[in-house]
Amino acid sequence: MSLKRILFFTGRILVVASALMLLPVAVALFYREYGMIKPFVIPAAAAFVTGVVFMQFRSGGNYKAGEGFTITAISWILISIFGALPFVISGEIPNYIDAVFETVSGFTTTGASIIGKSTTPGSIGGFVENMSRSLLFWRSFTHWIGGMGVLAFGIALFPALKGKSSESGSEAHILRAESPGPTYGKLVSKVRFNTRILYGIYLGLTVLEILFLVFGGMPVFDSVVHSFATAGTGGFGIFADGVMHYNNVYYEMVMGVFMVLFGVNFNVYYFMLIRRFSSAFKNEEVKWYFGIVGAATATIMINTLARGVYTSVGEAFRYSFFQTASIITTTGFASADFTLWPAMSQVVLVLLMFIGACAGSTGGGLKVSRLVILVKTAIRELKRSVKPKNVHLVMCDGEVVEHSVIMNVCGYFIVYVILTALSTLVISFDGFDTTTSFTSVVACFNNIGPGLGKVGPLGSYAGFSAVSKIVLSADMLLGRLEIFPLLIAVAPSAWRNK
Amino acid sequence: MSLKRILFFTGRILVVASALMLLPVAVALFYREYGMIKPFVIPAAAAFVTGVVFMQFRSGGNYKAGEGFTITAISWILISIFGALPFVISGEIPNYIDAVFETVSGFTTTGASIIGKSTTPGSIGGFVENMSRSLLFWRSFTHWIGGMGVLAFGIALFPALKGKSSESGSEAHILRAESPGPTYGKLVSKVRFNTRILYGIYLGLTVLEILFLVFGGMPVFDSVVHSFATAGTGGFGIFADGVMHYNNVYYEMVMGVFMVLFGVNFNVYYFMLIRRFSSAFKNEEVKWYFGIVGAATATIMINTLARGVYTSVGEAFRYSFFQTASIITTTGFASADFTLWPAMSQVVLVLLMFIGACAGSTGGGLKVSRLVILVKTAIRELKRSVKPKNVHLVMCDGEVVEHSVIMNVCGYFIVYVILTALSTLVISFDGFDTTTSFTSVVACFNNIGPGLGKVGPLGSYAGFSAVSKIVLSADMLLGRLEIFPLLIAVAPSAWRNK
Repeated sequence: MSLKRILFFTGRILVVASALMLLPVAVALFYREYGMIKPFVIPAAAAFVTGVVFMQFRSGGNYKAGEGFTITAISWILISIFGALPFVISGEIPNYIDAVFETVSGFTTTGASIIGKSTTPGSIGGFVENMSRSLLFWRSFTHWIGGMGVLAFGIALFPALKGKSSESGSEAHILRAESPGPTYGKLVSKVRFNTRILYGIYLGLTVLEILFLVFGGMPVFDSVVHSFATAGTGGFGIFADGVMHYNNVYYEMVMGVFMVLFGVNFNVYYFMLIRRFSSAFKNEEVKWYFGIVGAATATIMINTLARGVYTSVGEAFRYSFFQTASIITTTGFASADFTLWPAMSQVVLVLLMFIGACAGSTGGGLKVSRLVILVKTAIRELKRSVKPKNVHLVMCDGEVVEHSVIMNVCGYFIVYVILTALSTLVISFDGFDTTTSFTSVVACFNNIGPGLGKVGPLGSYAGFSAVSKIVLSADMLLGRLEIFPLLIAVAPSAWRNK
Repeated sequence: MSLKRILFFTGRILVVASALMLLPVAVALFYREYGMIKPFVIPAAAAFVTGVVFMQFRSGGNYKAGEGFTITAISWILISIFGALPFVISGEIPNYIDAVFETVSGFTTTGASIIGKSTTPGSIGGFVENMSRSLLFWRSFTHWIGGMGVLAFGIALFPALKGKSSESGSEAHILRAESPGPTYGKLVSKVRFNTRILYGIYLGLTVLEILFLVFGGMPVFDSVVHSFATAGTGGFGIFADGVMHYNNVYYEMVMGVFMVLFGVNFNVYYFMLIRRFSSAFKNEEVKWYFGIVGAATATIMINTLARGVYTSVGEAFRYSFFQTASIITTTGFASADFTLWPAMSQVVLVLLMFIGACAGSTGGGLKVSRLVILVKTAIRELKRSVKPKNVHLVMCDGEVVEHSVIMNVCGYFIVYVILTALSTLVISFDGFDTTTSFTSVVACFNNIGPGLGKVGPLGSYAGFSAVSKIVLSADMLLGRLEIFPLLIAVAPSAWRNK
């Protein structure tokens, strides 16, 4: 790998990030929070200078796959390091590790928070209600940037790289590293064009949700931050009791529907936009996705009604649908304290945490398409053990899934399970109960936010040790970038040039 | 598949099983429990008659892979159904579903029990101390039979099948279906000869442990049942507080060492027996196995010492080693109530539950060799994503692991994870806490016995509903027979003849 090429591209991303940090300054000016200008301008300037220095290391040649992965990994770590500074400089999150946790949680669209909540004993740094508007905006804006990817944003913005590097050859590696889900179909060959279209759809849906919420009576600021959190499938709110604070069916239904929409593979919208409806509707992943949403909603409805948690079908549907949509899309909003739900409903939610949303959406988790490929591969192996001589193929969307894709998905699944196990092991040293330890890792790794036990929707991650917070931050990045980029960035063999 | 061939072979196994049920009659006579003769003779006669009827369906031709799987699945279900009858007829476990659970738990060498323990409120059927000697013997003897496999026992005993079926061709399928672990190396071509040797090693080690325990002062009956449970990696005891009852370091060390020995791939002993030491020592799985035992023991020692559960290194070693050996081999004995250990030690034990012992041992779980292949496959996929054009091979014991083996292991792992998730979902309807629901499935599926929470070493499975007990019984069988045989037996496509 070429360190020069990596630094050059990372520098570009830092310049973009520094520009994005000026948006909260506008918010500070609007709300007359003049003390909040310095906490944003200083880190923005630092990121800009670092970016420009990095951009001096220019090098020709095509970007290789390993470099794309490494650029992605380093960029995400750097924007989190710079993005955490406003919290610390403003004094609203005095501890730097806490601030990094919160920022990583924002960019990775996790939504796990160390900010004290009124019901959490020993909470630090005050309550979320006491935070400044500009910081709350920044916190939710990180969700929106992280959802589609900061590198994708940079690529959409910048002119094509000069030199020998072909547009699709170099930047495709980076987009592949940053965008979620296995790639088993090519959409369009023009990478930059495609990225701009997808960002356009993303922006359009976000604006639509803001309008719907404002129309229903939600204050504009609240509508904007909640739409950012929904679009990026993040989950940061502005109240200690989150969405429960409003206790408003209309808001919940709007956000519920938009969460489901943002969990759909964006290629489907693209196909609908260019009126290739047959391509849009043959997408097998989306069918499974809606099937799982329906099945999970029904299971929780029946379970909560049977156990008397809710007394009417309408009430049960309201909470079941919102929570299912929130967890499968890995957003993490809560319209009810589901740690009080019966055991089966909680297990359904944990299973949804693992499954996650569609590939090519802003959601995290394993992704529905991976699950589909895994299930079909397992069935294929069952068939092969009975009739070893027959040819057994794995089909998706009417096409044969290539062998290399199957092996990649299997490899991903193995590392995913092992990292979940090892993280739980390290976290458990803090001595919390096993449900809290396990679900905090699951909720961070899959970019959800709240888990069960002490990290439920009314709980907080404040009580974990610094080591655990670093591990959980790493898990959030591993989950968002889908493991491989981060592991490859630190693998000695990837840096060895022949 | 040919139903005739399946019935014929299953009939043979039933005849063998009926003979085995006469051994407890001898125990009943010895201990003058004359009332216990009828409860064993009636089911033995029923199994014998059924077996003879089945054996009338004779059919020529070679046994196919699918038939081998189906014979294994049906035989195990039938011996559990007949083997449960003595508990019911004697009245010591009045409920038939409970009796089936207990018998499946015995044959699958799980050791999970529904028999009331003194600390369990609402326990049924009296305490284990009140049971008759002959039933306690039968309960532990099922461990010994199930450890090496009842079909393997039948094949070792019977003369070769006549007709066109070649010895290695027909019975190899059945042995493959019953013996645990992925097969990536052929040991000897003569199936029956090999099975006899392995059973000889098994018997020899069992007798050796009995002698060691008797030498240390343990009563003969206790030594026999505990050696049966150790050999089969089962875990049934004869006291409500299990091995804790003796509070004897010598017993614990003997049983600890023998548990580890029974978790080793038996082929290693075979190679040592025929003095092919180089073959024995190049076994990579065994090295990983001992490495994991060492690492887990050390982690639990440090954690329990740091948290002040134990005050001396010797004491910490005593309990850490025994519990590590007991859980990784999936035996399930407990020399301490580990539900009271600090969180990290409990997480270590849960991870050991998943890993399990070596392939070709009597232990359950995923098996160390599968874990090794999975880890190496994942590393290979990481390397391939950086350098897609290079050739990356998975090596084990100095040889290339064939692609079909890798895919089989991946397929197994996927089904294993999905079944664990789905079982937990169903079980959770009973409303126990998530730790109890999850670890009861893990403990049954991996054939361990005790889990955490309410199914800990001093707890019991008595509190679960009938549906949950059936699901957990199915999990025990799925775990012992490694999933595929049972799924294939019920797959319509396997029964479809072209």
